[in-house]
Amino acid sequence: MDTRTGLPVVGMIGGGQLARMTHQSAIALGQSLRVLATSPDDGAALVAADVHVGSHLDLAALRDFAKGCDVVTFDHEHVPGEHIRALAADGVAVYPSADALQYAQNKRLMRERLTAMGAPMPRWRPVNRIEDVRDFGDEVGWPIIGKAATGGYDGKGVWVLTGPEPAAELLAQGVELIVEEKVTLDRELAVQVARSPFGQVAAYPVVETVQEDGICVEVLAPAPGLGEEQAAEIQQLGIRIATELGVVGMLAVELFVDADGRFSVNELAMRPHNSGHWTIEGARTSQFEQHLRAVLDYPMGDTSAAAPVVVMANVLGGPDGGMPIDERLHHLFAAEPGVKVHLYGKQVRPGRKIGHVTALGHDLAQTRARAARAAHWLTYGEEPK
Amino acid sequence: MDTRTGLPVVGMIGGGQLARMTHQSAIALGQSLRVLATSPDDGAALVAADVHVGSHLDLAALRDFAKGCDVVTFDHEHVPGEHIRALAADGVAVYPSADALQYAQNKRLMRERLTAMGAPMPRWRPVNRIEDVRDFGDEVGWPIIGKAATGGYDGKGVWVLTGPEPAAELLAQGVELIVEEKVTLDRELAVQVARSPFGQVAAYPVVETVQEDGICVEVLAPAPGLGEEQAAEIQQLGIRIATELGVVGMLAVELFVDADGRFSVNELAMRPHNSGHWTIEGARTSQFEQHLRAVLDYPMGDTSAAAPVVVMANVLGGPDGGMPIDERLHHLFAAEPGVKVHLYGKQVRPGRKIGHVTALGHDLAQTRARAARAAHWLTYGEEPK
Repeated sequence: MDTRTGLPVVGMIGGGQLARMTHQSAIALGQSLRVLATSPDDGAALVAADVHVGSHLDLAALRDFAKGCDVVTFDHEHVPGEHIRALAADGVAVYPSADALQYAQNKRLMRERLTAMGAPMPRWRPVNRIEDVRDFGDEVGWPIIGKAATGGYDGKGVWVLTGPEPAAELLAQGVELIVEEKVTLDRELAVQVARSPFGQVAAYPVVETVQEDGICVEVLAPAPGLGEEQAAEIQQLGIRIATELGVVGMLAVELFVDADGRFSVNELAMRPHNSGHWTIEGARTSQFEQHLRAVLDYPMGDTSAAAPVVVMANVLGGPDGGMPIDERLHHLFAAEPGVKVHLYGKQVRPGRKIGHVTALGHDLAQTRARAARAAHWLTYGEEPK
Repeated sequence: MDTRTGLPVVGMIGGGQLARMTHQSAIALGQSLRVLATSPDDGAALVAADVHVGSHLDLAALRDFAKGCDVVTFDHEHVPGEHIRALAADGVAVYPSADALQYAQNKRLMRERLTAMGAPMPRWRPVNRIEDVRDFGDEVGWPIIGKAATGGYDGKGVWVLTGPEPAAELLAQGVELIVEEKVTLDRELAVQVARSPFGQVAAYPVVETVQEDGICVEVLAPAPGLGEEQAAEIQQLGIRIATELGVVGMLAVELFVDADGRFSVNELAMRPHNSGHWTIEGARTSQFEQHLRAVLDYPMGDTSAAAPVVVMANVLGGPDGGMPIDERLHHLFAAEPGVKVHLYGKQVRPGRKIGHVTALGHDLAQTRARAARAAHWLTYGEEPK
């Protein structure tokens, strides 16, 4: 409790853009997010008043950080489970709990748990030996996908295996590996669900995520052409996963849709997620506010969309040189006065996510074009060709 | 320029709720607002990373604060004009300029300037002697309004004069006084206009402001029942005032409407203003982002409304005792999951503005009721009767 305001103190471990945007929502709720950053130059550390600098791998730093927090939560999933358990044993309210978060930290555990739940999933198998890889590939058909159970993100830790040999090297390096069938993708979807300790759940509209090289570049809300029934089915699945896994806070469920329209779970994230950035302007309650409401056990906010079509486009750092970022912003604002910009306070590096833009509208093609144009200006400093 | 991000540094003099909410918008633009607060417990100081503590009346403090800022702007109008001129002479970009801001700082100057412009205004007169007050009252009819030319806000510095005698005391105290006819009010309106140094202007929809005891308690956007032609006329007036006075940043023009539907200018404010808080969720570009865009000479953002009806209700501190503020928030969220809350980080004191709530909808009566119910929960900790 902040005695100056009578309002709770939420601590977020990790000082990236998710903490940065959560701080914006915390301010509206009368709070000031406490941030554990690894560097004073982290995106959230540049803008928050209550910043601790330390490592999320250092239990002493975590314990010091948690002092005076009403709730501790996460901007990423890299805090070791044993540290989270140690904080909980100290009496700290940590959400999501280690028991829930393990399913976002370890893909093998997630696949096992969701298999037991009967959730739709690609065929998959944990593999320890090269023979396991060969047997699985022969069974489901090559190529297959190899995934490191832990530590992957944005396409890292994922390999397309055309035969068993490349897996040998990974296994020899000690990578905990699972293999999955390569789904013939029609598209990818995602659904955001919030859950509070009380057990209230709230699902957002299902969105389509557009990936390039394993990185999400665009989110379309709601997912175009998705039937009401299938949308409801996916929301129900998200709610069931949040409830059965005991998630508290935001849960993002990423899904594959195959050529026959069948969907299966790809990944889980238990925090605000890139596929939910559209909610800042595009939904009545942003995922960042909703995450705070959830971990604080406040009643959930309205998840309905604020416009018929919402498109979020990620802004990646472009090639070195050219127009300074501030000047790019001028051009974007002149070209698209209605597009909303979110910059994360990061140094521009080629391919690095440095921000996102959101466009609201009525027509999908037009709204997509506006968001793409704005993102292009920030990445390349020029009008799209 | 912040060398870590390549983006500009805006400094805001004053650390109240306006700076607090401007910081939220600055974060989205990749910036971190620099705040000059009078106390580390000021609303903005609780949430911003770059806080200086000092007095806005102390030129040395202002000069120190301005170092490294690309632009300096204001959360209030209490910085003396000579200090603003001194900063400008140092080469600091200060917006609005002292030449413009004087019309928001001094009601006599404002009335003179707007009279010269031919803007619609109540009959008024500067008064130095009790005889001037008597003559004016006899001419326009008693009661009349007396106003301190400088220093008033939220109903302070405004007196209803039923005869000349009470003015004698004010004049004896050395109050610089103007008198105005008492307009038979039908309602009050306001319009927000942004203007950049380049000269671009952008006007928001005209709103109705509902006052109680001289304090704005509710804003209805757009102003119900206002004809398109009159709305356009008021927006044009706002644009003309911003342009002729050389305002840079947000300008709020508060207007009286009499029983015959004639409008006249009441007050000017040159900063984000309470009558524009509805724009945070209710317009495509919030007045706080727009203020930053204007003072940075970025192109202006889209001012169109995000919903057919938007209602903002101020939250005043209620009587001492009762439910803690955090618990009130729980009840509000349970009752109204779609209402947006903004708390300013202030200690609750009876009658003090501690936050505001915003409801978006289609039906005026319903949307007003939702906003009023939410504000009531935060003020009184109980369901409205």
